[in-house]
Amino acid sequence: MKIDLAFTPDELEKKKLAGKSVVVIDALRATTTMTVAFENGAAAFIPVKTVEEAREVVARNPDYLLAGERRAMPLEGFHLGNSPRDYRPEKVRGKTIVMTTTNGTRALVAARGGAEVFIGSFLNLGSLCRRLVESGRDILIACSGEKGLFCLEDTVCGGAIVGRLEKMGIPLTQTDAAHAAKILYEHCENDVHGMLCSCEWGVYLEGLGLGKDVHICAEIDSSEVVPVYREGRIILDR
Amino acid sequence: MKIDLAFTPDELEKKKLAGKSVVVIDALRATTTMTVAFENGAAAFIPVKTVEEAREVVARNPDYLLAGERRAMPLEGFHLGNSPRDYRPEKVRGKTIVMTTTNGTRALVAARGGAEVFIGSFLNLGSLCRRLVESGRDILIACSGEKGLFCLEDTVCGGAIVGRLEKMGIPLTQTDAAHAAKILYEHCENDVHGMLCSCEWGVYLEGLGLGKDVHICAEIDSSEVVPVYREGRIILDR
Repeated sequence: MKIDLAFTPDELEKKKLAGKSVVVIDALRATTTMTVAFENGAAAFIPVKTVEEAREVVARNPDYLLAGERRAMPLEGFHLGNSPRDYRPEKVRGKTIVMTTTNGTRALVAARGGAEVFIGSFLNLGSLCRRLVESGRDILIACSGEKGLFCLEDTVCGGAIVGRLEKMGIPLTQTDAAHAAKILYEHCENDVHGMLCSCEWGVYLEGLGLGKDVHICAEIDSSEVVPVYREGRIILDR
Repeated sequence: MKIDLAFTPDELEKKKLAGKSVVVIDALRATTTMTVAFENGAAAFIPVKTVEEAREVVARNPDYLLAGERRAMPLEGFHLGNSPRDYRPEKVRGKTIVMTTTNGTRALVAARGGAEVFIGSFLNLGSLCRRLVESGRDILIACSGEKGLFCLEDTVCGGAIVGRLEKMGIPLTQTDAAHAAKILYEHCENDVHGMLCSCEWGVYLEGLGLGKDVHICAEIDSSEVVPVYREGRIILDR
């Protein structure tokens, strides 16, 4: 099984996606938040690129929830931000959520050419890796990055997937990028929360008083859900 | 002093270069080869993007040497390839060399907006770091990458610069990318040659029988020269 990793959506766009399992990661916070939302009973996410598009979709479907952020700040008139703590069961159960975020949405859109597209975070590492093995396809990890540039937390989360699959005894052919991500993960394996607090985006979130969110994003293997992105929607298919 | 790193020329183009010391790295092999050429008395390099452009410049200046490669293969009618072993004193002493390579040239062109642009490799790490400290500017390390994508060897070489400056006691503010590169360097610090042999491009070069070149690219601190890229030419300015 081959495994590759794109640090940014730009890199992802240069890679061959057809026939591969693609894993989209925005560890701080979009893909973590989605995982929490599904744990709490959400029905689906519809990721869209712009705030305007999000408003339009919800205008046409008034039972949908409007969610998202820009630079980690909530948006006017939106039902939900991008904090996992927003997505409580009483708010999201059975709901379809239209979401736009700074980086995660862009990576999702760029990942659409994959044979399967999964949502990854530190929360669902184990269940995600089992699903990847089950699919048997070559893997491409798609980090969301930060405004088109490298960010540490997504890469470390991607490296955790490489490390887990290795520990499961899966024979892996790793590209330089996948191998580098694994080294970075192993470097901070014993203190993922510390890494999340000290990376650039984590420092920014802490500065906004969102340290509790960062803490949630470090809850390794706390969830069994593996959301999939299919035909414009993120859902649980089993 | 702030230090940042771009994994690819695409990333470099998104960053602010003005006022910074930029270090261009193509560890396997272009910037290593340039360093060896200057050690052996070369007068200057003129990096150009295309094979055609290289031929035109040399047609107008018949005393210049024509150098370069595509996918590590020599080019027809060129005086020199991209192997450091080609650049012997009797061939290059006093010569201006017009060079085009797959990745290094693109990074150099993208780096032109820097206040100063230096040529870096494992060979001139120490002298390069002293020069960076002397300049006192913020630093941006520009990895050449491989066809627009991440490659391990340039990033590790960039991380070696971060690590050296830290060891020199220079207070550094590191971006996620610079910090990640330093972690990757520290991981293989004791076996840089092994890393160069096992990374994707190193494996490719070994497969072409160019293992001797890879060995030369790992000769840490073997050179004191710090080539600078200024007004379209790479020269030694002191």
